[in-house]
Amino acid sequence: MHHAKPLPRFLVQRYKGWKATQFEENKSWYSRLADEGQRPRTMIISCCDSRVHVTSIFGADSGEFFIHRNIANLVPPFEVSKTIHGTSAAIEYAVTALKVSNLVVLGHSKCGGVQGCYEMCTGEAPQLQEASSFVGRWMDILKPGFERIEKNEGDKQAKLTALEHESILVSLENLMTFPFVKEAVESGQLSLHGLWHEIGSGSLECYDADKKEFTRV
Amino acid sequence: MHHAKPLPRFLVQRYKGWKATQFEENKSWYSRLADEGQRPRTMIISCCDSRVHVTSIFGADSGEFFIHRNIANLVPPFEVSKTIHGTSAAIEYAVTALKVSNLVVLGHSKCGGVQGCYEMCTGEAPQLQEASSFVGRWMDILKPGFERIEKNEGDKQAKLTALEHESILVSLENLMTFPFVKEAVESGQLSLHGLWHEIGSGSLECYDADKKEFTRV
Amino acid sequence: MHHAKPLPRFLVQRYKGWKATQFEENKSWYSRLADEGQRPRTMIISCCDSRVHVTSIFGADSGEFFIHRNIANLVPPFEVSKTIHGTSAAIEYAVTALKVSNLVVLGHSKCGGVQGCYEMCTGEAPQLQEASSFVGRWMDILKPGFERIEKNEGDKQAKLTALEHESILVSLENLMTFPFVKEAVESGQLSLHGLWHEIGSGSLECYDADKKEFTRV
Amino acid sequence: MHHAKPLPRFLVQRYKGWKATQFEENKSWYSRLADEGQRPRTMIISCCDSRVHVTSIFGADSGEFFIHRNIANLVPPFEVSKTIHGTSAAIEYAVTALKVSNLVVLGHSKCGGVQGCYEMCTGEAPQLQEASSFVGRWMDILKPGFERIEKNEGDKQAKLTALEHESILVSLENLMTFPFVKEAVESGQLSLHGLWHEIGSGSLECYDADKKEFTRV
Repeated sequence: MHHAKPLPRFLVQRYKGWKATQFEENKSWYSRLADEGQRPRTMIISCCDSRVHVTSIFGADSGEFFIHRNIANLVPPFEVSKTIHGTSAAIEYAVTALKVSNLVVLGHSKCGGVQGCYEMCTGEAPQLQEASSFVGRWMDILKPGFERIEKNEGDKQAKLTALEHESILVSLENLMTFPFVKEAVESGQLSLHGLWHEIGSGSLECYDADKKEFTRV
Repeated sequence: MHHAKPLPRFLVQRYKGWKATQFEENKSWYSRLADEGQRPRTMIISCCDSRVHVTSIFGADSGEFFIHRNIANLVPPFEVSKTIHGTSAAIEYAVTALKVSNLVVLGHSKCGGVQGCYEMCTGEAPQLQEASSFVGRWMDILKPGFERIEKNEGDKQAKLTALEHESILVSLENLMTFPFVKEAVESGQLSLHGLWHEIGSGSLECYDADKKEFTRV
Repeated sequence: MHHAKPLPRFLVQRYKGWKATQFEENKSWYSRLADEGQRPRTMIISCCDSRVHVTSIFGADSGEFFIHRNIANLVPPFEVSKTIHGTSAAIEYAVTALKVSNLVVLGHSKCGGVQGCYEMCTGEAPQLQEASSFVGRWMDILKPGFERIEKNEGDKQAKLTALEHESILVSLENLMTFPFVKEAVESGQLSLHGLWHEIGSGSLECYDADKKEFTRV
Repeated sequence: MHHAKPLPRFLVQRYKGWKATQFEENKSWYSRLADEGQRPRTMIISCCDSRVHVTSIFGADSGEFFIHRNIANLVPPFEVSKTIHGTSAAIEYAVTALKVSNLVVLGHSKCGGVQGCYEMCTGEAPQLQEASSFVGRWMDILKPGFERIEKNEGDKQAKLTALEHESILVSLENLMTFPFVKEAVESGQLSLHGLWHEIGSGSLECYDADKKEFTRV
């Protein structure tokens, strides 16, 4: 038996609005995308956070972006095991099957996952240290980032922002531990990009690998 | 050293366009969302596929949907281990920290991940059976679904559609193996919903738990 | 013997700038587009005028728009003859081979071709009436539009704007005389769109077929 | 009655983005261009292909390039008749009214029109030989080029590249059959230039009339 309820009315209504307008306007294109398959140029790894509107920010047309969203836009390091790795599977599919040209790691301000990692590491959130905490174990990926910023000057807010930046940098580092990513980057098939988006101000910063800092786009 | 390149110009231009228009029109709301935190009503688990526009379909406003996207919109079964579980972490965060009211599993037609699972199970895609295949190991989650549909009548296309439906049903089943999901559903805090979206026709089908079938919205 | 000169230095320098920056940023995508072929969603028919920047206005990425540009964005009526028809060939290729979903006729203010047509029809530009005038014979396509606006109230400037609108409407009408366009429109494969762009103000007006008028986008 | 639909939303959004940013930054210049008219230095004749970004390659500013785009960047020979000649009209306007200084014929690799001509001439594409094929009749312009390369050594790919070069040379030859072009070239008012752009590698080759070959810019 499945615990499944009818779709709430507000979602039904919005869907019908979309169907009558946007779908109607684009239906021949959607039909072609269905028949011929997707050919996205770019993969985006972003946070699940409801305030991050990946498709709006980049004015996306259907078919353009292959999007994986998880807590804090993290990529775990490469590891072959029998364990299931949803993020690694998404990256493998995008790079080896779809052969995307750009892979963007998109972090953001006020990230609840990053804050959880910070508080776990400083002892403020002991529940996240428990073996049974999925969020805690997921945020372990970011621990190497915490170690790099914990001695930073500044208050907690400044350190949280630094750790948000680290969520992007750790992911960029871990991406290069995947043999198929490394090969695609080195052969020029794939470019990696690191972005941090400030929700309140709408600004966007891009990681500059030469200057080793994030700079305003 | 990080392998990070500047953002391609067409994305910079589109971002700047968004910033000057949509952001500008909504900035007081975005500023409140940044200051007061997100309070999404709904979590959506959908596929990474570039043709699935979750936010468009439901006319999403910023702050409304907590969105996790992975290959084939799958939820693995509950399992406590030291392993990292990105999907389980996202669900835990949405249900226990954000206390969402609705959790929608949104599948779709022409799903490359579902097709991979089908071909892996029928022996047509031996590379997905290898231990080192992240996509293969991820699609193992859907094997119980394959076993239920493999004896179905009809051609491969009909079975693929049936398996896409199963990707939603398996996820709904697995969701209920998480103690915090089960508790939230039983207490009435949370409703689960299963949807299947046909990309070409734009139609949407919702799982009806009483009739045990998907019906057009 | 060909009369061909080396490329002027200012163009060489700009090309080298593009090659070192934009090409470099996008090269894996361009390489895929070269290998796999184009799959543009949209055809645009616009004027050759140097002030109409089709790709900028729509933030185009390479591979998105199939663009035909001629004087005054005109489409001649369907006519089978041994004569060469560059515009008809471009439309045939876009609709039947590339199967574009959208066809946009993009007119603009201050159009020299439209003004030439106006002055030819009012007798102010007798040289355009000569059989040997390519511009004159080309602008004959717009004569049915002139006949509809010549009795309009208002000064010459108002009539020129009306005739610019007609350059779009005549083209939309003529498009439907092509059997393959008509069929694609009626089957829902193709949508036609009429736009008028004001160069000085940057505004864009879209033809509303229900209201029978151009309205601001 | 016109078959015209509203502009698809993604194009509306991109346009609004352009208006609020690039237009806003340049509006005094655009306003002057609107008031005083265009004064382009260069005419470019290029292909409609969505992968040829004329304005990007030459870092075009608004008002600089008068651009005609047709299938395979062809110029028909001079011919006075009652027939409509869109390409001849564009050239006449650029040379006699705008008095451009440079006229660039820009061909490119992987040209679908050129391939069509090749296959029509070798009997592989009989549909293009029909009188009713606009693409076929348009590509007839290139037949003299085919005759020069059909005996070349090398495989089909090598011959296609040679025919792409011919699409530029035939156009340069035909340009000189227009009395007003010949006169402008001979008086030194106008220079002609032939370029071939390789989409995948981004390289650009310029025709060297002395060496009678294309050389890398």
